[in-house]
Amino acid sequence: MTDSLIRIRDALRSFAARRDWDQFHSPKNLATALAVEAAELLEPFQWLTDEQSRNLPAGTRLAVEEELADVLLYLVRLADRLGVDLDQAAAAKITRNEEKYPVDKSRGSSRKYTEL
Amino acid sequence: MTDSLIRIRDALRSFAARRDWDQFHSPKNLATALAVEAAELLEPFQWLTDEQSRNLPAGTRLAVEEELADVLLYLVRLADRLGVDLDQAAAAKITRNEEKYPVDKSRGSSRKYTEL
Amino acid sequence: MTDSLIRIRDALRSFAARRDWDQFHSPKNLATALAVEAAELLEPFQWLTDEQSRNLPAGTRLAVEEELADVLLYLVRLADRLGVDLDQAAAAKITRNEEKYPVDKSRGSSRKYTEL
Amino acid sequence: MTDSLIRIRDALRSFAARRDWDQFHSPKNLATALAVEAAELLEPFQWLTDEQSRNLPAGTRLAVEEELADVLLYLVRLADRLGVDLDQAAAAKITRNEEKYPVDKSRGSSRKYTEL
Repeated sequence: MTDSLIRIRDALRSFAARRDWDQFHSPKNLATALAVEAAELLEPFQWLTDEQSRNLPAGTRLAVEEELADVLLYLVRLADRLGVDLDQAAAAKITRNEEKYPVDKSRGSSRKYTEL
Repeated sequence: MTDSLIRIRDALRSFAARRDWDQFHSPKNLATALAVEAAELLEPFQWLTDEQSRNLPAGTRLAVEEELADVLLYLVRLADRLGVDLDQAAAAKITRNEEKYPVDKSRGSSRKYTEL
Repeated sequence: MTDSLIRIRDALRSFAARRDWDQFHSPKNLATALAVEAAELLEPFQWLTDEQSRNLPAGTRLAVEEELADVLLYLVRLADRLGVDLDQAAAAKITRNEEKYPVDKSRGSSRKYTEL
Repeated sequence: MTDSLIRIRDALRSFAARRDWDQFHSPKNLATALAVEAAELLEPFQWLTDEQSRNLPAGTRLAVEEELADVLLYLVRLADRLGVDLDQAAAAKITRNEEKYPVDKSRGSSRKYTEL
């Protein structure tokens, strides 16, 4: 079965092509749209306590689910327009994070790697 | 082969568990981190023209690739903490977008669906 | 003495004019720069508890102070380029908020006005 | 006449006190709200060309004006909760920017100071 990130990429290519939207989908515009969606995803959390954010009311959870999808769609589309392989980039970043945050130094700490 | 989104989710679960980071990874904090990363991804584009954003210098492209990965990692992690199936949510959103943006009304237009 | 928002506006006009930067300062680019700075301001808070955010270490506080200034500078500049009187807009918004959040309904509640 | 930033600060103090909202107005929450508002301000610009952003339709301009006010209100409130003098911070930042961007090196260039 085709990998999810590939399937989404192809669906978005077709979606944009049928609407002649490639002209609007510059990396700059897509990066902007992605940041806007990420903030919409953050919006319902802004006045919640940590604890409340772990137990969202059903309506909020549904809205959040849709915003998560929006972020993913723009992310996949932006990566595609830049010719970036998202899956490979994520794997490389996880490896880098393993180096930046050694288990013995970062265990139980929320400090940034520059302060470990 | 395991699907990419599942593989990343599992890698991040293990990454956080070994560092005892679940305590910091409330949905609120992760949504905040995601928005911060999305803005870091936007940063290199802010003064570029559309045309320039389609032809990034090699150094910028590399930095952008890493930021794309950061956004994906926080997105997958946040979805996991909320119990959301990202792949399914994305598919559902594409279907909704097909309805909101009928090809004949949205072709060649960047208008929002509420203004079509 | 000249009002602070006017003084800042004039200083930024002169700053940009001497550098021939009006060409880059389209409302779109300035709104992007503003969002990027707002996220940089949010960054140091992302893993803090509410309580910790009320008691920032001196170094963090200084960095935050500089980010606050960055946000204000882009905000004043963007308003200027759009011909918006920020002071008047703020006064109008406070009046609207008084109507949207009647004291008796919103006292002690963080709910959005649409849910009061 | 009282300076605009002082007047807004005092109005927001009174607004929050009457609603018993200081409990929600931690610097972390306010920084989050500010970033959310900055993204809402960016939203109407996302698919516009630079040129179009310089000539907003009347309806968009009105919405943008309200979002500019929202950003200012949260900015002033956050600075107040952190004990930061915004006017002084802005003046200090303009001075720093004069040093970071010497006129002869930055004239007509949108490059970051680290690349001048």
